[in-house]
Amino acid sequence: MNDNTVVRPVFFVSDRTGITAENLGHALLTQFTSIKFEHHSLPFIDSEEKAQLAVDSINMIAQTSHQKPLVFSTLIDDDYRKIIAVSNAYIIDFFDTFIKPLEQELCTPSSHAQGLSHGISNEVVYMSRMEAVNFALKNDDGTSTREYHNADVILIGVSRSGKTPTCLYLAMQFGLRAANYPLLDIDMADGRLPEILLPYRNKLFGLTISAERLRMIREIRRQNSEYASMAQCRKETRMVQLLFEQENVSCIDSSHISVEEIATSIIQLMKINRPPIY
Amino acid sequence: MNDNTVVRPVFFVSDRTGITAENLGHALLTQFTSIKFEHHSLPFIDSEEKAQLAVDSINMIAQTSHQKPLVFSTLIDDDYRKIIAVSNAYIIDFFDTFIKPLEQELCTPSSHAQGLSHGISNEVVYMSRMEAVNFALKNDDGTSTREYHNADVILIGVSRSGKTPTCLYLAMQFGLRAANYPLLDIDMADGRLPEILLPYRNKLFGLTISAERLRMIREIRRQNSEYASMAQCRKETRMVQLLFEQENVSCIDSSHISVEEIATSIIQLMKINRPPIY
Repeated sequence: MNDNTVVRPVFFVSDRTGITAENLGHALLTQFTSIKFEHHSLPFIDSEEKAQLAVDSINMIAQTSHQKPLVFSTLIDDDYRKIIAVSNAYIIDFFDTFIKPLEQELCTPSSHAQGLSHGISNEVVYMSRMEAVNFALKNDDGTSTREYHNADVILIGVSRSGKTPTCLYLAMQFGLRAANYPLLDIDMADGRLPEILLPYRNKLFGLTISAERLRMIREIRRQNSEYASMAQCRKETRMVQLLFEQENVSCIDSSHISVEEIATSIIQLMKINRPPIY
Repeated sequence: MNDNTVVRPVFFVSDRTGITAENLGHALLTQFTSIKFEHHSLPFIDSEEKAQLAVDSINMIAQTSHQKPLVFSTLIDDDYRKIIAVSNAYIIDFFDTFIKPLEQELCTPSSHAQGLSHGISNEVVYMSRMEAVNFALKNDDGTSTREYHNADVILIGVSRSGKTPTCLYLAMQFGLRAANYPLLDIDMADGRLPEILLPYRNKLFGLTISAERLRMIREIRRQNSEYASMAQCRKETRMVQLLFEQENVSCIDSSHISVEEIATSIIQLMKINRPPIY
């Protein structure tokens, strides 16, 4: 049955959101490119009854698909884990695998408290993340520069080079205050930074992008427009590259990397002291 | 040395962003509430030289702190993993722990290809996530309702009940098109849904919030304002609760849960068929 056409069912079981289980499970499954997986999320398994219903779902899929499901679990409660353990599945239990060795290494029993990840485990940190999201929205696309003195980073680049999603990700994931300012033709004409940005030189970070990629992204936005034309994209990407060189602005090419990768690179390259995730 | 005042250094080592390593590491460490951890991220360890530099950092901290660091690693390359393995640390290697059992269970060798998680492993999925972020921004705060027919979900609730960050998270993490519409006093006065929302009834999802929590959040925004007063917050939270009951709108209380939890609950309660993460 294990040929390439088989679809293997996968369950992500958690007492809270299941995001951690899904992230790590996905990281492992991407290593098996020849197999197709069918994902099922079972979040908020926080009672024996729900754990039993989860087992029923897993067993039903096992029966109908004639495939033993994989189960990635971050369940913490021993009772719920025991219930899931009897399902007709191959179970990868993140908690069980690591918590005992960690208890030994740390010479401390674990609290076995559920819901501490991806929740509001620290009110101050959580509120600062939400405030950072507000900050990114208020300081998006150069609409206002009045709060730039409070920014952790100010992204600059041509329109559609990935500034806005990166700012939102920096805010949501890391609680960083990220503003962004779009560089128009007119801003770059003399090869100097716009004057309004000069007081914040040490917070600037540039995003470059290939003309081909920019054209593709702009086409989705405004089909067959001058704005999305290859000539315009070539012109802007060349100008911005020159500007960053001339003004010595740290930058990264956003063409083929994700917002997660851009954000992580910015933090690393600018040596931003960010708080741990959540 | 293992008493409660000790700060234990923790490293998250990865060939890409390190987000998976940090998420799972954090989920495990929150189980040890009596210990303080000091987090260090070492992303983009994608050469032997960088792996060696990572070992140097880990060993230096081990020496200066007189504490054996914990290392959570998602490194995939065998050579880099071997280099890290000799550092003076307690290493939790996610890849090594699970990949061999998975290879056996799946009867397939793993590809050992790095960078498939939190990157652009699937261009179509990635672009749809970015488009979903644009959608959330364009359809934020009721500014426009013209694209509501394309929405996967339309969040409704009073100002500052968590609609915008939840929409952005639904878009960024899950690629869902989430709009939001703020319910003002005037919208709720007759206990009926605003007419403009009626065609989209099956996409509506309500956020409720306690008056106390709302007041606290609004105070951050506009201190000592009528808008943030207890009387106003009580009035609005009561009206919205009544409206949702009257109109039979599914809803969730956002007072004490995170955007991740709100988003996951919405997907579950509305039975939205979302793609797997990334």
